[in-house]
Amino acid sequence: VATKAPSSLERELAAILGPDPLAPVTAAYLGDETEGRGLRGRADALVLPSSADVVARTLAWCYEHDVPVVPRGGGTGFAGGAVPLDGGVVIALERLTRVRRFDPLLWRINVEAGMRTADVRRLAREHGLFFPPDPGAAEQSQIGGNIATNAGGPHAFKYGVTGAWVTGLEAVVPPGELVRVGGSVRKDVAGYDLRGLLVGSEGTLGIVTAAWLRLLPAPEAFLPVAAFHRDVQAGCEAIERVLGSGLTPAALEFLDGATLEAAGPAFPGEVPAGAGFLVIAEADGSREEAARLRAELSEVLGEGALGLVSPTGAGEVEALWRWRDGVSIAVTARRGRKVSEDIVVPLDRLAEAIEETLAIGRRHGLPSCSWGHAGDGNLHATFEVSADDDEELARAELAALELFALAIRLDGSISGEHGVGWVKRGQLARQWEPAALALHAEIKRAFDPKGLLNPGKKVAAL
Amino acid sequence: VATKAPSSLERELAAILGPDPLAPVTAAYLGDETEGRGLRGRADALVLPSSADVVARTLAWCYEHDVPVVPRGGGTGFAGGAVPLDGGVVIALERLTRVRRFDPLLWRINVEAGMRTADVRRLAREHGLFFPPDPGAAEQSQIGGNIATNAGGPHAFKYGVTGAWVTGLEAVVPPGELVRVGGSVRKDVAGYDLRGLLVGSEGTLGIVTAAWLRLLPAPEAFLPVAAFHRDVQAGCEAIERVLGSGLTPAALEFLDGATLEAAGPAFPGEVPAGAGFLVIAEADGSREEAARLRAELSEVLGEGALGLVSPTGAGEVEALWRWRDGVSIAVTARRGRKVSEDIVVPLDRLAEAIEETLAIGRRHGLPSCSWGHAGDGNLHATFEVSADDDEELARAELAALELFALAIRLDGSISGEHGVGWVKRGQLARQWEPAALALHAEIKRAFDPKGLLNPGKKVAAL
Repeated sequence: VATKAPSSLERELAAILGPDPLAPVTAAYLGDETEGRGLRGRADALVLPSSADVVARTLAWCYEHDVPVVPRGGGTGFAGGAVPLDGGVVIALERLTRVRRFDPLLWRINVEAGMRTADVRRLAREHGLFFPPDPGAAEQSQIGGNIATNAGGPHAFKYGVTGAWVTGLEAVVPPGELVRVGGSVRKDVAGYDLRGLLVGSEGTLGIVTAAWLRLLPAPEAFLPVAAFHRDVQAGCEAIERVLGSGLTPAALEFLDGATLEAAGPAFPGEVPAGAGFLVIAEADGSREEAARLRAELSEVLGEGALGLVSPTGAGEVEALWRWRDGVSIAVTARRGRKVSEDIVVPLDRLAEAIEETLAIGRRHGLPSCSWGHAGDGNLHATFEVSADDDEELARAELAALELFALAIRLDGSISGEHGVGWVKRGQLARQWEPAALALHAEIKRAFDPKGLLNPGKKVAAL
Repeated sequence: VATKAPSSLERELAAILGPDPLAPVTAAYLGDETEGRGLRGRADALVLPSSADVVARTLAWCYEHDVPVVPRGGGTGFAGGAVPLDGGVVIALERLTRVRRFDPLLWRINVEAGMRTADVRRLAREHGLFFPPDPGAAEQSQIGGNIATNAGGPHAFKYGVTGAWVTGLEAVVPPGELVRVGGSVRKDVAGYDLRGLLVGSEGTLGIVTAAWLRLLPAPEAFLPVAAFHRDVQAGCEAIERVLGSGLTPAALEFLDGATLEAAGPAFPGEVPAGAGFLVIAEADGSREEAARLRAELSEVLGEGALGLVSPTGAGEVEALWRWRDGVSIAVTARRGRKVSEDIVVPLDRLAEAIEETLAIGRRHGLPSCSWGHAGDGNLHATFEVSADDDEELARAELAALELFALAIRLDGSISGEHGVGWVKRGQLARQWEPAALALHAEIKRAFDPKGLLNPGKKVAAL
């Protein structure tokens, strides 16, 4: 490994922070899941703080010297939110992994931002508790990044997104101040909801360094059922039947036919011939309650279905969800790359959004597919791109713009999970009225008057 | 009734809006539940808009002419948030009562801000659905006011506060623009969370005119159990045992001994001799699930209890909650007035907060008591005040300041439900760091640069 001479910026930061938090800038800190779309940044320095105070001192120095700062979690984002676009300092929070306090008998935990999501979930589970948010890549992603993007996941249908579980935040805001809003209390209407504003702000308003999270007693049982249907229409009707029947699954997922082609071979069970759509619904609760609910879900989803798969036992259930978690990778594997956007539509427009994704793909000569969180109307609308054809990539990026227009035409949103990051910059201008866009810009200015915090990200209007 | 000649302001507004939305300024529009604390406002005009557009045009005119605007819901607030402190225009939303859209099979409804909370809940129930937020005074309060204060209630323990059920807002923001953020979609991370920021902003950032609400299938059964304990210590231990046992009641309420003295005579059941603390826990879900959970709650709460009351049948259950809803009035009735604050503390500090409330009362020579949402650590800490002794009222106001200090000392918040309004102005400065307070002020400026929207309310620092 060639070692580069430290930049003057690195030397100056080391003088302030000591040498310990400084680390060589390696490729691992310059990209995220948008690398296939050609996005790779550059940085002048990498800081790995071991305390919130180091985060504050780093931001203070950068703010004084007009140096951009890009906070970074696990780097599993799909919007380029963690990519340093044009130099400056990357602050990666991976060393902030302490559990500051854990009160399992009171259903709450205070963790630092760099703790991996899967570790939060595991620790809760070891104490009979449950941290519901389950975005993909939980083994790599960090809780701070989940908060910065307000991450979702399959179980958001019943339990809500990450922000619903955050009762308090510690964050560093420009020009380098450590602030705390909320705490372990479960209700707080004392001020404007700065906590909620920082959640999902993608590191453009402040850098989350720690969070108080609510937990729940773990449900005794999780019992999914996978229902294969012939086509989009039949599958989406089955999904609407679930809601119309007053059943409350914990998760309500779908895969369209093309996704099923990519991921089906690894499915832990039999995929019936002619299956062109998959619905997965999960029942949870006490053993009896989950069993009863799954039976009802099976009845409702089974109407006209080609086949049902009902895993039993923790191993089989886990295998199904592991498979579901791998869908994105299976789709990427087919042609090497993909452009995948996380649009949201009202549930009754889901079928239309799925069909339109295919139509947009056809118009652009791109294989396409979608899957995602059916109950929330949140689809990962995807164009598959050859690994070595950049002209195809360019077409896919144009096709993605049509997805955003589609979402807005259907009264939806350009993003349900990934956020705006870099790849959706300016797209909110299609969705919001000018007065709301102006407030968006004013809020950014209120927090970050110099525009140094994750510049170029979550930009509402260009 | 003496009719006052219309003010010049009224005449000018009528010229813009037509005469229909203008109404005589009567006492009913100048106060709220703080009247006992001597708070009563004055207004130069009252507008009762029948459309969001009239709200926008009213605000536009007022903004142009530097006239303060005070939005008003049902007037059931405890913080003076709806009181026009020093003239200007009151915009009361009571005519905006349309259901714009209701999709019961998709668990969602779009209602205007003036619809009464109880009507939203009733309409949902008539279609087998459930709108969980249940603040007191639901028959009077309006959904727009609930959103403006982010109202809670007993069932917030399991289901969260009002904001958790709002997926989209229509609001008028200065200088008079109608904006929409979110909609019927259940997830949206496209922009900064303006929706969340408007929720709980007490009409100081914008005027909510309509909202998209999420609903749930109604649980089959609601089965409360009331457990009488000897004292605060025994009662709070019982409450912590519920969480420690991994039971998840829908509501977890308490009344201390003095509250029980005031409200006990009307209790729909037998109050055992020596009872000095009441815990109410409610199980909900399917009939079997609710019954099973109530049995477990009864076992855990029954340990050392003086008696348990377990209502059966919808009538008895409703009677218990109607009684619970009347506690505040029963306490007021005892001496004619009260000063009641809604502090929040971490659950493990609840006993301390209850005892300290009594100690503060003793130091100020005031009878005191508390009750509230135990599971959320949210207590209505109350000083009883004689109807005709203003010196006593002044002492109670000083005592309230000690409550805020207490909440902050216990790592809590000065408000869990009522908001800051006028009565807690400046108190957030005790709770938040200067950098957070500065952001609070900047956000207000970003939305309302002239400071004309509900002036003097939700002021973080004086």
